[in-house]
Amino acid sequence: MKLYYWPGTCALAPHIALEEAGVAYTAERIDLKAGQQGSADYLAVNPKGRVPALATARGILTETPAILAFIAQSFPAARLAPLDDPFAFAQVQSFNSYICSTLHVAHAHRHRGARWASDESSFEDMRRKAPENMAACFSMIERMMLRGPWVMGDDYTICDPYLFTVARWMESDSVRPSDFPAIEAHTKRMSERPAVRKVLAAYTA
Amino acid sequence: MKLYYWPGTCALAPHIALEEAGVAYTAERIDLKAGQQGSADYLAVNPKGRVPALATARGILTETPAILAFIAQSFPAARLAPLDDPFAFAQVQSFNSYICSTLHVAHAHRHRGARWASDESSFEDMRRKAPENMAACFSMIERMMLRGPWVMGDDYTICDPYLFTVARWMESDSVRPSDFPAIEAHTKRMSERPAVRKVLAAYTA
Repeated sequence: MKLYYWPGTCALAPHIALEEAGVAYTAERIDLKAGQQGSADYLAVNPKGRVPALATARGILTETPAILAFIAQSFPAARLAPLDDPFAFAQVQSFNSYICSTLHVAHAHRHRGARWASDESSFEDMRRKAPENMAACFSMIERMMLRGPWVMGDDYTICDPYLFTVARWMESDSVRPSDFPAIEAHTKRMSERPAVRKVLAAYTA
Repeated sequence: MKLYYWPGTCALAPHIALEEAGVAYTAERIDLKAGQQGSADYLAVNPKGRVPALATARGILTETPAILAFIAQSFPAARLAPLDDPFAFAQVQSFNSYICSTLHVAHAHRHRGARWASDESSFEDMRRKAPENMAACFSMIERMMLRGPWVMGDDYTICDPYLFTVARWMESDSVRPSDFPAIEAHTKRMSERPAVRKVLAAYTA
């Protein structure tokens, strides 16, 4: 399998999950700064022009929650999700769907306003509101979702690398990590995992 | 189980899926026009203040893709997803995640700009761009995703009620259904299913 990624994006979540699963994979950088996601070569991989994308023997997968669940289901020995319990699995998926469709969308309004509007004044308005929306999302996670020590409680799941990934956006989104002590402790716990260290080391290499 | 819904929202997708699964359930309207989603009673059900929410014997589930996969996994006899094939299941999830995090978000910018900005001029700017974004999403689905006759090909899945649900937003979002003949044919095919007829009849009752 090959993961297409760029540091700083949500591709970090499946990247960590692949490491945790102990599976053989390669990773290829798609340089978002240089606009490589819009190149003909990459659009042939992922017509959406986004990362992550996961190339598998059966074809390409896109959308972070789908890739994360695929990794968990494909490598059950790694125990990355409660695969035999539809309700518990749905709770995992609900968390990941919230990250994807609410928190990540709130984040994108800081720099990607051109997706949804046309005027510079609108972009500026969105940028101003993004910190408040991000803080509201993290507050919801802190108060209602993160059970501790891991997102789903005692068991580490595919929710954990996803939360870790988006929590790293806090400071650039003008959200104070110390306002969310449970998430801050989760970030620290994640940072100590060998899989996480290995992926982050590769990012800065 | 009890589904909390409001006509015209994406709650229609799990509503149809529950019918297709042949499961006993009740449905309760949450009047979005009257702001009932923000009532203390409903926030106790779903602190996010959105529909759908599904009350189960084990607790509440939120987020449409998670609810849809839960219905498919909980009632395997209904064959609403390729449950024994992680790659095929991931394709189902990828489609549903795209609807949730890209198409639905594009739609929300027509009327819910206050989620992401503060000025009336920004809301107006977002409203103007929404039809173009919705058309781009439907074009991606028409060209790249909808295999036919159902979204995933020969097998009807939880992707189908979700596509049917959001395709019903086309006209109010100033998108011409006739520009997307494969989706239009899919809508017609869906409209003929007894489960769909039954749910829509209940909406207008």
